[in-house]
Amino acid sequence: MIEISRRNLITGAVCATSVSALPRPLSAFAPAIGRQVPGIYRYTVGDMEVTAIADGAIKQPLPEAYVKNAGTPEINAALARLHMEQSKITAPLTAIVINTGTKLVVIDTGLGPDMFQQSKGAVGQFHANLAAAGITREAVDIVIISHMHRDHVGGLLASDNSPAFPNAEIMVPEAEWAFWSDDGNLSRMATGSIPEINFKNNRRVFAALKKNVTRYAAGRELLPGITSLAAPGHTPGHTAHILSSGQKRVLVQADLTAYSALLFVHNPAWHVFFDMDGGIAESSRRRIYDMVAVEEMLVQGYHLPFPALGHIDKTGASYSFSPAAWNSTL
Amino acid sequence: MIEISRRNLITGAVCATSVSALPRPLSAFAPAIGRQVPGIYRYTVGDMEVTAIADGAIKQPLPEAYVKNAGTPEINAALARLHMEQSKITAPLTAIVINTGTKLVVIDTGLGPDMFQQSKGAVGQFHANLAAAGITREAVDIVIISHMHRDHVGGLLASDNSPAFPNAEIMVPEAEWAFWSDDGNLSRMATGSIPEINFKNNRRVFAALKKNVTRYAAGRELLPGITSLAAPGHTPGHTAHILSSGQKRVLVQADLTAYSALLFVHNPAWHVFFDMDGGIAESSRRRIYDMVAVEEMLVQGYHLPFPALGHIDKTGASYSFSPAAWNSTL
Repeated sequence: MIEISRRNLITGAVCATSVSALPRPLSAFAPAIGRQVPGIYRYTVGDMEVTAIADGAIKQPLPEAYVKNAGTPEINAALARLHMEQSKITAPLTAIVINTGTKLVVIDTGLGPDMFQQSKGAVGQFHANLAAAGITREAVDIVIISHMHRDHVGGLLASDNSPAFPNAEIMVPEAEWAFWSDDGNLSRMATGSIPEINFKNNRRVFAALKKNVTRYAAGRELLPGITSLAAPGHTPGHTAHILSSGQKRVLVQADLTAYSALLFVHNPAWHVFFDMDGGIAESSRRRIYDMVAVEEMLVQGYHLPFPALGHIDKTGASYSFSPAAWNSTL
Repeated sequence: MIEISRRNLITGAVCATSVSALPRPLSAFAPAIGRQVPGIYRYTVGDMEVTAIADGAIKQPLPEAYVKNAGTPEINAALARLHMEQSKITAPLTAIVINTGTKLVVIDTGLGPDMFQQSKGAVGQFHANLAAAGITREAVDIVIISHMHRDHVGGLLASDNSPAFPNAEIMVPEAEWAFWSDDGNLSRMATGSIPEINFKNNRRVFAALKKNVTRYAAGRELLPGITSLAAPGHTPGHTAHILSSGQKRVLVQADLTAYSALLFVHNPAWHVFFDMDGGIAESSRRRIYDMVAVEEMLVQGYHLPFPALGHIDKTGASYSFSPAAWNSTL
């Protein structure tokens, strides 16, 4: 109250006087704002308009045996080189919305708004940030899912478990659908394991959609300018996508490097424990990264730091990620 | 219009039907949004809250003799390695606002809103983005200037040439003030040269402020938690700043690497043509970068890509910049 009075006095009566001559108050006029801005970043790919939307990040202690073929000391050394906190794993999530000029398309959907409360707002922000970006869920024509892990399909539902994109066609890789629909696969999953959690989550989510999904193959143009690209290993039907318009192409890599993706860009031979087949996943990773490095193709990476757009460079048997400079205009 | 009718039909009457069964319109329901989001990023340094605010970026053809001691082929090769467009220079500008808990402080102010129209919105965004960040210019207590180049002082004035921060104390390095106030220095500047343009711009801006500025020395705590650090060479009194609270410290580097800063992080021996003394600038750059690399101190870089926050690593006689991961919460 005192500060506001002083402010009025200054602006009203003595505006030519140096403020520094007056006694300063003990507390700031402006309280700290105390919250982050919504994570939104827009760019064009030829005639397409892409909006990258942060879902937030999962932060957790480094799990035991996080990497099948690397120990905790090696992982901590790699985290230190990347200026990331040791003995912690941070997994950022960034979904994208593509306006192709004829369709409004979402690729992957975040952990879902039900995670927002549980994580105290750290993750599950996709729907809220989508709204902040001026995009209504009802306007989305197509949702393309890269693979059926819960941090990619969770946002198919709204917080009341209704379909979050009520007017959209939902497209799922056919090999993913076959795998996660097979009760025989469920019977072989350990109780409480991550695959089992994902299996049950998929049942819940896709039942709640109350509509048939479209199953799509790899290596096909799903709609003009969006092509699927086989990238198996992380899951059996894990699929990346290529956006293409005019001379521009962008790889939407999904979990080609998974979870704390930057760690695996720099250590591509490491097999994260939830890769269903680490060897095949590594082979997909190297094949596609070698291609984008040679072609200097931009990469949009689901688990790379927001806005998760940049170039992959090959350095010996490893890779590095060079974020695209933030563009303040389109 | 047709699309809206179809949308109403779907949501109203046949919401259980798969949308994909219906004919799709030829144009998207949602038009492209066509503009970037305001460049705003918030983080904390101990008890301080920092908001990085993009002013945009200057883009121009690579000037002749842009670097005094490197030729165009070398510069283009370096730009290619950084995935930056060849024969072009992009200079992003990011100012910061610090809420220290007792003061609201701005460090540097962008090119000024008068540049917004001239550049078709590409640069001069600081005031608009500040407002988008929920910060009113009237609430700012102190503006600290790192050095008196027009892309740092331009935002001291509003678009009507009135003081943009009417209630703020304006703090300027004393060696800068002495240099740019000396008519003898003006008489030695070539007509139409960048130093002369800056000299005349400083006269215009500081006359319009209609108040005395506070001149500050290097190596002093300017207010609790903000210390000035001598970094001469770019200009005679060019000054960096250290933010400090609790165990956390951040270097606010100003033009320690200037203009297209990433290029000079990777090529620290290169002397950009508007460094007034390239040798002294390089010496300041190496001294301070060696310190932050060893201490793993975060760097906020005025001309680094937005949000311009990250770590500097030393690699042989050169450096690299590792952006801090975007944090979706505070």
